[in-house]
Amino acid sequence: MSKLTGNAIFGQSGGPTAVINASAAGVFTEALKQTGHIDKVYGAANGIVGILNENFYDIGQEDPAELELLKTTPSSALGSCRYKLAKAEKDDTDYRRLLEVFRKYNIRYFFYNGGNDSMDTCNKISKFLQKEGYECRVMGVPKTIDNDLYGTDHCPGFASAAKYIATTTMEVYLDARVYDTGMITVIEVMGRHAGWLTASTVLAAHKGHGPDLIYLPEVDFDIQTMLSDVRRIYEKNKKVIIAVSEGVQTKEGLFIPELVGEVSVDAFGHKQLGGTATVLANYLKEQIGCKVRGIELSLMQRCAAHLASKTDVEESFLAGQTAVRCAVDGMTDFMVGFQRPESGPYQCEIKLIPLDEVANTEKKVPRDWINEAGNFVLKPFIDYALPLIQGESLVAIEDGLPRFAELKKVKVINP
Amino acid sequence: MSKLTGNAIFGQSGGPTAVINASAAGVFTEALKQTGHIDKVYGAANGIVGILNENFYDIGQEDPAELELLKTTPSSALGSCRYKLAKAEKDDTDYRRLLEVFRKYNIRYFFYNGGNDSMDTCNKISKFLQKEGYECRVMGVPKTIDNDLYGTDHCPGFASAAKYIATTTMEVYLDARVYDTGMITVIEVMGRHAGWLTASTVLAAHKGHGPDLIYLPEVDFDIQTMLSDVRRIYEKNKKVIIAVSEGVQTKEGLFIPELVGEVSVDAFGHKQLGGTATVLANYLKEQIGCKVRGIELSLMQRCAAHLASKTDVEESFLAGQTAVRCAVDGMTDFMVGFQRPESGPYQCEIKLIPLDEVANTEKKVPRDWINEAGNFVLKPFIDYALPLIQGESLVAIEDGLPRFAELKKVKVINP
Repeated sequence: MSKLTGNAIFGQSGGPTAVINASAAGVFTEALKQTGHIDKVYGAANGIVGILNENFYDIGQEDPAELELLKTTPSSALGSCRYKLAKAEKDDTDYRRLLEVFRKYNIRYFFYNGGNDSMDTCNKISKFLQKEGYECRVMGVPKTIDNDLYGTDHCPGFASAAKYIATTTMEVYLDARVYDTGMITVIEVMGRHAGWLTASTVLAAHKGHGPDLIYLPEVDFDIQTMLSDVRRIYEKNKKVIIAVSEGVQTKEGLFIPELVGEVSVDAFGHKQLGGTATVLANYLKEQIGCKVRGIELSLMQRCAAHLASKTDVEESFLAGQTAVRCAVDGMTDFMVGFQRPESGPYQCEIKLIPLDEVANTEKKVPRDWINEAGNFVLKPFIDYALPLIQGESLVAIEDGLPRFAELKKVKVINP
Repeated sequence: MSKLTGNAIFGQSGGPTAVINASAAGVFTEALKQTGHIDKVYGAANGIVGILNENFYDIGQEDPAELELLKTTPSSALGSCRYKLAKAEKDDTDYRRLLEVFRKYNIRYFFYNGGNDSMDTCNKISKFLQKEGYECRVMGVPKTIDNDLYGTDHCPGFASAAKYIATTTMEVYLDARVYDTGMITVIEVMGRHAGWLTASTVLAAHKGHGPDLIYLPEVDFDIQTMLSDVRRIYEKNKKVIIAVSEGVQTKEGLFIPELVGEVSVDAFGHKQLGGTATVLANYLKEQIGCKVRGIELSLMQRCAAHLASKTDVEESFLAGQTAVRCAVDGMTDFMVGFQRPESGPYQCEIKLIPLDEVANTEKKVPRDWINEAGNFVLKPFIDYALPLIQGESLVAIEDGLPRFAELKKVKVINP
């Protein structure tokens, strides 16, 4: 391998997580150590958009203690984007601009943190730079609460969301049964196409404080079947807790809000869902006639750093750190992934996945991890998820509230 | 004082909190120690309803380790109720029945844990028993996330909800500004008539990660004024975070959902609110045209034991413990309240408030703790609330998830 010296840039993309900044901490602290390979370490404001606009921060000027605090600071400290690059064959304007910026700032290391779409972005840029003969090592750092990235056992961000969702479900379970009157609670969980997050509510059930019914997007949803499931449990227990993914749809492809209301579409053509809990709660109230409460876990499920999994924080940091080490070692065009031993206790092992393979492929909850009726999640999921949520992240506390990282964000004026 | 020997009963009433069971732990552990005064310690299933139905648990048969775990278990471990007693002068059926049950089980100590309505219940029962010449010491243990009980500096349950609300607001603040596009976030907080909980979002602002605008029920709400507030901030920052109490109303007495939708009424004649965040979010989206997200903190704000204030847990326990000690010492017809020193550092001092005084009186956020425009909260509130949210409750963790108390709930068959 040839030695490559130059500057490094790191960007965050897509929806944030409770631990995406832990990966940033991993990239930054490792990159700052790699003198001889990496000169300047830049952070791109709002991902690829910041690179296009030459909107960079000089990470070398940050206080190391604040970079350390990134480990327990939720959301994207540098800002994120949902900018979609065109295919270079169709329109290479953005790619030419990126190349120009990379040249101007002598960027030789590009680390990009995101989900499916971001790995696709990352891959397209790398292939373009290669075609143009510009040497730059490109590594993807995975991130998504949705846990739907191909090729990796699990994704940084998932476990913390899962821990939040399971813990909150346990608490809501207790709250929802204080009165001696009938009550149905509908908990809506994020997950457009994959049910990993909603499945996590089974961890609460595993502890005896979980939902009676769990509906994932992996199984066709039928509102009549659900109604009879709910009715059966309600008649027996007078309390029903339902966990439902925002992404469940009928076999005709209709989302729950579409059965009643409207949906809009984002820049990637993804349908913007929401309102599932409310729609279902209203429906069940009408049909069964008891008190029904719809709860949307909303942004909290992806930003609750105070309840992050220590395992997740450490692995997210490791993913960032590994990306830098691999790039310095000469690797490019990989996403850092994880695998676990085939048998024996859980261990997080690093696995590199070619960006080509991961881009735009979605990993779903295996059908045989869901019961036949399609309304509950089985033991293999518990065995899979439980090791990931172990350990409590120690958020720095000041005056009874979290002390989050405060970056100086010194703008890079000239390369 | 005359010595009184007999059995004790404890009941939980009204909406639960993250720490209502910490008061239960205080009552139970202290009552179990008071041999010579208290023989049997009973827990009433679903508050007063359980007493009317002779549905009691024998607390002496519980494992002390599980009683200890009550300190960090949210919701009402015994079950709660919203049962409203008639005035004894109008209809004394329930009172006669209660007297009959008290006699049958030789109940001489009655501890009742709840908010305004529960203190009223407690008071009515005590006065009836006195009139009938049945000696029984009755003590109220305060509880309400709403913090609106008269005569006490603050209420057990409030601080933990405040800590959850402030922490979550900080996390949502960071999440809501990841993209470089405009966004308005509306956070709906509980509180029917008093704004204590919504005011707690200012603690997040105090840490630099809080709302731009805070609307409490203490100030008449005007949607046009709010719109111009929001527009002004949006034009400057492109990000606006609004904290709004579910209980805000116009000077004509209309709640936000009433400006658009329907509301229902509970057994106490309280309007059942909700949907405020959604209604406001839709309105702002229409008016301003940017992305708007409505977030309802829902049940989570009152059941998040994992984020309870250690101060609150300890004080809640103390309230329960004190109620028992005072009753054994001969006192009756008081609610245990708190006060703090006039000056100097915060300290929680016990204060006994006659039930007569506390029942059905509501304490609101002082008008001069709110800015003149009525859209933000001032420093006196921060000075008031900050000491209460100090310390992190150490929830027992098993396998990465909370280990909540599991009571045997051995039913009392014969007195």
